Amino acid sequence: MNQPPHTPLLDLVNTPDDLRRLKPEQLRQLADELRTEMIDAVSTSGGHLGSGLGVVELTVAIHYVFNTPEDKLVWDVGHQCYPHKIITGRRDRIRTLRQGGGLSGFTKRSESEYDPFGAAHSSTSISAALGFAVANKLQNRPGRGIAVIGDGSMSAGMAYEAMNNAAQAGNRLVVILNDNDMSIAPPVGGLSAYLARMVSSSEYLGIRSLASRAVKKMSRRLHDTIGKAEEFTRGMVTGGTLFEELGFYYVGPIDGHNLDHLLPVLENVRDTSEGPVLIHVVTEKGKGYAPAENSADKYHGVPKFNVITGEKAKSAPSAPAYQDVFGLTLAKLAETDERICAITAAMPSGTGVDKFAKAHPTRTFDVGIAEQHAVTFAAGLAAEGMRPFAAIYSTFLQRAYDQVVHDVCIQNLPVRFAIDRAGLVGADGATHAGSFDITYLATLPNMVVMAAADEAELVHMTYTAAEYDDGPIAFRYPRGNGTGVPLPEVPVKLEIGKGRVVREGTKVAILSLGSRLAEALKAADTLEAKGLSTTVADLRFAKPLDEDLIARLMRSHEVIVTVEEGAVGGLGAHVLTFASDTGLTDNGLKVRTLRLPDTFIDHDDPMKQYDEAGLNAPQIVDTVLKALKHNSAGIAAGEEARA
Amino acid sequence: MNQPPHTPLLDLVNTPDDLRRLKPEQLRQLADELRTEMIDAVSTSGGHLGSGLGVVELTVAIHYVFNTPEDKLVWDVGHQCYPHKIITGRRDRIRTLRQGGGLSGFTKRSESEYDPFGAAHSSTSISAALGFAVANKLQNRPGRGIAVIGDGSMSAGMAYEAMNNAAQAGNRLVVILNDNDMSIAPPVGGLSAYLARMVSSSEYLGIRSLASRAVKKMSRRLHDTIGKAEEFTRGMVTGGTLFEELGFYYVGPIDGHNLDHLLPVLENVRDTSEGPVLIHVVTEKGKGYAPAENSADKYHGVPKFNVITGEKAKSAPSAPAYQDVFGLTLAKLAETDERICAITAAMPSGTGVDKFAKAHPTRTFDVGIAEQHAVTFAAGLAAEGMRPFAAIYSTFLQRAYDQVVHDVCIQNLPVRFAIDRAGLVGADGATHAGSFDITYLATLPNMVVMAAADEAELVHMTYTAAEYDDGPIAFRYPRGNGTGVPLPEVPVKLEIGKGRVVREGTKVAILSLGSRLAEALKAADTLEAKGLSTTVADLRFAKPLDEDLIARLMRSHEVIVTVEEGAVGGLGAHVLTFASDTGLTDNGLKVRTLRLPDTFIDHDDPMKQYDEAGLNAPQIVDTVLKALKHNSAGIAAGEEARA
Repeated sequence: MNQPPHTPLLDLVNTPDDLRRLKPEQLRQLADELRTEMIDAVSTSGGHLGSGLGVVELTVAIHYVFNTPEDKLVWDVGHQCYPHKIITGRRDRIRTLRQGGGLSGFTKRSESEYDPFGAAHSSTSISAALGFAVANKLQNRPGRGIAVIGDGSMSAGMAYEAMNNAAQAGNRLVVILNDNDMSIAPPVGGLSAYLARMVSSSEYLGIRSLASRAVKKMSRRLHDTIGKAEEFTRGMVTGGTLFEELGFYYVGPIDGHNLDHLLPVLENVRDTSEGPVLIHVVTEKGKGYAPAENSADKYHGVPKFNVITGEKAKSAPSAPAYQDVFGLTLAKLAETDERICAITAAMPSGTGVDKFAKAHPTRTFDVGIAEQHAVTFAAGLAAEGMRPFAAIYSTFLQRAYDQVVHDVCIQNLPVRFAIDRAGLVGADGATHAGSFDITYLATLPNMVVMAAADEAELVHMTYTAAEYDDGPIAFRYPRGNGTGVPLPEVPVKLEIGKGRVVREGTKVAILSLGSRLAEALKAADTLEAKGLSTTVADLRFAKPLDEDLIARLMRSHEVIVTVEEGAVGGLGAHVLTFASDTGLTDNGLKVRTLRLPDTFIDHDDPMKQYDEAGLNAPQIVDTVLKALKHNSAGIAAGEEARA
Repeated sequence: MNQPPHTPLLDLVNTPDDLRRLKPEQLRQLADELRTEMIDAVSTSGGHLGSGLGVVELTVAIHYVFNTPEDKLVWDVGHQCYPHKIITGRRDRIRTLRQGGGLSGFTKRSESEYDPFGAAHSSTSISAALGFAVANKLQNRPGRGIAVIGDGSMSAGMAYEAMNNAAQAGNRLVVILNDNDMSIAPPVGGLSAYLARMVSSSEYLGIRSLASRAVKKMSRRLHDTIGKAEEFTRGMVTGGTLFEELGFYYVGPIDGHNLDHLLPVLENVRDTSEGPVLIHVVTEKGKGYAPAENSADKYHGVPKFNVITGEKAKSAPSAPAYQDVFGLTLAKLAETDERICAITAAMPSGTGVDKFAKAHPTRTFDVGIAEQHAVTFAAGLAAEGMRPFAAIYSTFLQRAYDQVVHDVCIQNLPVRFAIDRAGLVGADGATHAGSFDITYLATLPNMVVMAAADEAELVHMTYTAAEYDDGPIAFRYPRGNGTGVPLPEVPVKLEIGKGRVVREGTKVAILSLGSRLAEALKAADTLEAKGLSTTVADLRFAKPLDEDLIARLMRSHEVIVTVEEGAVGGLGAHVLTFASDTGLTDNGLKVRTLRLPDTFIDHDDPMKQYDEAGLNAPQIVDTVLKALKHNSAGIAAGEEARA
């Protein structure tokens, strides 16, 4: 354990009120101390580093100039909020970041009044800030909405929708575009190119001219609006920026690490009666920490590391990550199949699509943070004979749900969905958990839904999906590393809707979907030791169900337990529905369904999360034993069984 | 029945190949005949009129100039495609539009090779067209993607995401912006204002200068890109349009009813090696039919009407529409509750929010076609103490699923979801059916899900939602008119998670959610007549379930049947899950769940749709009788029960 860094000025600042008592000339030192403290904290906890380093000065300046928490500050995504947390009363817990019981790695309403709106998914901040602005306006209360949003987040349609509606908020809405030309990967698309042109074609203005220019610009605009509407109109059409065309006053670009520039601009914006204003701030991800500045991903997310050297803690060598197994498998399949292509929404490495891209760059499409477009673009590719794989995390696929329904399933187009981060995800917490995809996908006609029990299964499922041209097909797999099973030399094409019996028994049958299979097998060991002969099946498919197998097991066992890493409405519900449709449960068969509980599970060690969720071997055993004991039809017994 | 219109030229045109054999100077007459034919057809079938009338010339020009179906023409939304259907081999069925077994009211892949991508939800066309363009490029085949998209559809983020990715397609992508300053209601937001400024500040250019300008512009751009990159960059920043800033060549605005302008511009775009190109075409919704031109909604959607007078067929006076009951109830509640506000995504009249807006304009927010923003904006309003009602059709709420999960449910914010068009919707078909909302909402922690059995219940549920501040709450109700029950003078605040017993029996219990209650009661009559004493409960809540009531009924009845207007994974699944969790089904209770089938149901009369879905009284009766007869545990009997 290092000595904590020497931070005499930061030690005086527990809240923004303390901050506002400092003199402007002290803020440079405060920012430096804040940066040092943040680096030290993340070196012990791991977490998002580069983004926070990029906004240290911005964080200080916003809280110094604006009246938080009355003014509602909304950090887009929220992974850049560590400096914000340190100066909003949470410094004492900053070394607990992303750990069980500790601070969230994102903004969170329940943590602080300075977090008026939680986040983790991108591009929500302008909508939320607009909501705050309008609500306060309607209620005749003070309070602005301030959104800080990265250039990467601007590629999502939701941000555009919000900008398109911003004018109504007037000067109560301030959008700070934090342009670091970098989300997790370098950003893509027309907007990104546009921003780069803006930055490259402008000189950073000196403080005097910058501030006066901002004000002058506004006054001129206001004057024109009233006085010479026609001329104003022409000006907007021919000379405005994209943001001005959508109704903003645009200020920038300005250097986001220069407090002498930031403070007067923010003060001017605060004091103007006009708006909404978009302030274009240019920052450097990883700023002020050389190892981060020099790294390709700017230390976006890091494990614990050595502050002096930047050396990251290495985890023990282990099985390959699911994402890489997927990416490499797909790349290999694409060598002999020219129709295969891969689509990612700004997550090339997280999804393993980077592995595919290396081998097949022309068939790789990183569309930016734009899941909606990703899915319908894939549908278009599929309609024209390609075999597109949309590789999207479970939680982010929610962004494209309508496109999955309307463009893919209704048209029965063979889009392949490679769904990473299915189930609980550990330190990223509830916002990143992939809890609902089985439910929201398996309810859709035409959709096939698979889940991989291990990385070998993932190889087979990737291949199966590639070869399946009859309609949409999805396969889900967890975050992190596989179980260490050998990878198959030759992938096998699975029969659609067919599971496999992993272990044969006679009394109890556990129907597993996905990577809880290992826990199901452990539970079976325990049950056998108690004299309860146990079958374990890996259903592989949530849809279509292996009805033959399920019926056979239901007819030949006393207790059936389903296990899945998903919320209610998924595999268990489909099994129960099939069984009641066919009358298989009419005669005293006991069925229990284990699934994620009806709560959002906070960040913690994944094993502990699954324990909390009741999806580990001991809870499977417990469920079986209680079901076997349960004989009466009374609700009391029923309630006991649920307890 | 009128005489069919006299259309000598149109009679020669069955497909675009026929069209291309005509001389350019014949196209004006063809367009006129096409317009006449379309008006006549819709007068007998009802349907979308105004949008199709607006694109008659555009339809003719596109098919004349481009090589459909090799060039893939994607109509955004697709409700403007009637003229397109008439000249792509479907004229003989054009009077069957939107009727059971007849043509769909939208584009549909299964209908014609000239419909390469179906639609009905807005703003998908650019993504799909880009998919076609890229797929053909990758496969070294000819074939462009051509998207025709309205200015209203441009307010959706998805269109922006697609534009942001368009550059990669080069000249294989053509986007035609059909700017009629009107989606269903007048459009809102910054983009709309921007387009209006562009149109008002430009004169329509003469044909010669227009065409040459388009070409010249492109050549100059190309030259600059290669020769003087820096100058080009500056030019883009200061002088480009919003579309150019996103990477398009912009051509326009041009008069979309003037074939002498349209044809050469399209030809130039077809023949250029540069792109992608966005052609800004200005049209008039309802063009060429005076009653439509003069109507506020431009005859967007119409019943059968008299061609000469424009007089629309009146339906018999009936119960009020659900949407109006909602809008008026909310308006009334808002008289004494200043926190209530209403949000619609470009559907003020369809959702009944127009009724609210009349009384409370400052608390009404039409955000454009922007469901994602609508929901997170509502979350911001809720976080700041307002009581927002997001009034969105079930099928369109799919667009905002991630926002419901991430911004509303995880944060447990009291956003009220008024979900119209729940269940099957008749002539609009599968794309507009509200089939999945019970499933995709009830799986979410914190969410409360109600369904109204009739319009009186809707009044109570609207009030209940207004008064519920503990978290998100949704209430769903069908398309169309209520059942005619008297509306309550004073709304009742329902107890959360409590159903009601509508009829007490002893042997069979039907658990209904939503407006199938009437069918459940009819079924109960039939069953009583057969000597089977039947309970009917209106559960009101899919989540939380009325566990006490369900347990009581399960303990005291032999057969339980659930009925809902939703797909698998909804109410039935939740009831089965509760029953298996508690062991209520361990001892031979027979439960059956009636729900929408695992297929997409095409447009038809709603009653026939529900018959196809098996959700009418006779099928409820049948299900009960089969369950009672089902005694063995054999799969054969089970299978019989399903048949």
